Amino acid sequence: MLRPFRWDRAARRLDLLDQRRLPREEGWIECPDPEAVRDAIASMVVRGAPAIGVAAAYGVVTAFARPRPGEDPEACFGRADRTLRPARPTAVNLAAALDRMRLRFDSLGDLGLEDCSRELEDEADRIADEDLEANRRLGSLGADLLPPGDEPVRVLTHCNAGTLATSGYGTALGIVRAVAESGRSVEVFAPETRPWLQGARLTAWELVSDDLPVTLLTEGAVGSLLAARRLDAVVVGADRIAANGDAANKIGTYNSAVLAKRHRVPFLVAAPFSTVDLATPTGADIPIEERDAAEITEFAGVPVAPDGVRVWNPAFDITPAALIAAIVTERGVARPPFGPALARLGAA
Amino acid sequence: MLRPFRWDRAARRLDLLDQRRLPREEGWIECPDPEAVRDAIASMVVRGAPAIGVAAAYGVVTAFARPRPGEDPEACFGRADRTLRPARPTAVNLAAALDRMRLRFDSLGDLGLEDCSRELEDEADRIADEDLEANRRLGSLGADLLPPGDEPVRVLTHCNAGTLATSGYGTALGIVRAVAESGRSVEVFAPETRPWLQGARLTAWELVSDDLPVTLLTEGAVGSLLAARRLDAVVVGADRIAANGDAANKIGTYNSAVLAKRHRVPFLVAAPFSTVDLATPTGADIPIEERDAAEITEFAGVPVAPDGVRVWNPAFDITPAALIAAIVTERGVARPPFGPALARLGAA
Repeated sequence: MLRPFRWDRAARRLDLLDQRRLPREEGWIECPDPEAVRDAIASMVVRGAPAIGVAAAYGVVTAFARPRPGEDPEACFGRADRTLRPARPTAVNLAAALDRMRLRFDSLGDLGLEDCSRELEDEADRIADEDLEANRRLGSLGADLLPPGDEPVRVLTHCNAGTLATSGYGTALGIVRAVAESGRSVEVFAPETRPWLQGARLTAWELVSDDLPVTLLTEGAVGSLLAARRLDAVVVGADRIAANGDAANKIGTYNSAVLAKRHRVPFLVAAPFSTVDLATPTGADIPIEERDAAEITEFAGVPVAPDGVRVWNPAFDITPAALIAAIVTERGVARPPFGPALARLGAA
Repeated sequence: MLRPFRWDRAARRLDLLDQRRLPREEGWIECPDPEAVRDAIASMVVRGAPAIGVAAAYGVVTAFARPRPGEDPEACFGRADRTLRPARPTAVNLAAALDRMRLRFDSLGDLGLEDCSRELEDEADRIADEDLEANRRLGSLGADLLPPGDEPVRVLTHCNAGTLATSGYGTALGIVRAVAESGRSVEVFAPETRPWLQGARLTAWELVSDDLPVTLLTEGAVGSLLAARRLDAVVVGADRIAANGDAANKIGTYNSAVLAKRHRVPFLVAAPFSTVDLATPTGADIPIEERDAAEITEFAGVPVAPDGVRVWNPAFDITPAALIAAIVTERGVARPPFGPALARLGAA
């Protein structure tokens, strides 16, 4: 199965599929230390909240595999954490993975660098494996939420919440795969998702590779698609879900949620529970990353806007809980009101 | 003043600014006959409903300037009309300009080719001049609709409804220019408008050229911009307005209208009355052009989607009248209910 990362046990090195070059070529970038992992996360070699979490976990291991002269285990961990944590601000999975690695590290007592490295490597493996398991489980739970019948299910997604955004299988696209595995036809509509075109470059690519029907459209055409009554559900991933159910996801998600509401099409958010941040009360408390203007003013080195134009380039938006029909996690499906529902799943 | 076309009286040839190459270079394409004008319209060398209408009018003149062997005036007109009318289906201005040229032609009686050519040239000049006048007038009427005060007015537009889409001054951007000419500060937010990027390439370019403040954003960020309460109005152009007020405009306009409604920001449609088609009852009766998949799957020759992916690429959408606060024309401002209001303006 395709995964967006490969952990090389012998070299203790993280190799990341360079998603910036898809679908033209499948190139891999070697990350032997936390600094390389951080650069890969910041430059979107790897993206998708769950995949970023896994990459950060292995990034910690690389610090122990190649300590700097004089570093003890605590110094190693501190360097990895300081390097990786600020790489991207919105997805909570990055911080959650580092926090979990810290817990494991703190439990190791006086182990030396080499033993720490092996124990932390096992923990990173568990984070990756559990994410894959979570996706399969939430995919199955989400498939049960789609309208029953023999007709093909028509699903709009946004950005890429698939294999490439996770340890494999995907969250939103995990639900799509679960429907297909149940023997029912499913058709995905993928908005291209500017400025990075994850819908065109990643979602369309992984679904075409899996022989799943996918239709590419501009984000501008989402309203017309809904107005033509050609959709049964909108299913998206998330980068962070606040305690009240407000969800941060790729910029443009909120537009689709508002349009789905107008056309009475259910809007589902699919994410592993590691994306739920019960310490963040509402969407207003989620930091929204703003990225470089050149992502919009240039394409493949070609300028597509005049010199000197101002640019506003937020990478994520907040979909308020009131627009969400259900939040699908591996621990169960949360329904409104999301505050108590998510708290219950958190305590489970 | 910049215009997207130049009529060469000596050569009796239409030169069109190649808008596909903006903002990188200002190149002009020479159109000596209706076939060249049709190709320029179909390939979006010239775009924008009013500008397409003007180009078609001059396209008729080129047929008379260079008749084919044996062609009499009626044959000349017939060839021009058959060639130009199907070039693009959605904008009514194309058909409206050809109908007006036909009326003038029918009034000419037994004039010869050369005399017809000169009379039709004058009529095309009038169509162009009247469009410019209409834009100045509707710009002034529209400026009065924006919320009063000393603060800068913040306007979201879509695609390009400016100088480049018209005979000059613009419709939606004509309102912006009228505000600026009144001495009040105005700030435009321009969504890039996929797949052709008219917002980035054309709207941002013409506003930067005029030293008017403009901020470029992805269409995905429109919802966040509205949620941040950073807008006073949404002002767009139109390609055809049905008798009931439903408006066809560039794909993505409907999304902005729905989002504006949710955030209680007034949504204005600005167009010369030649864009109103009282013979088309509702938006459902407006033909929506679908364009080539390659507009989405490639950029500057670089593939950005996997081979074999299905694509849905409608070029326009319909904003229902219920989402529109006012339709601004040079004949006056129509308010809901639009059916009687537009009929009144039509009779004026």
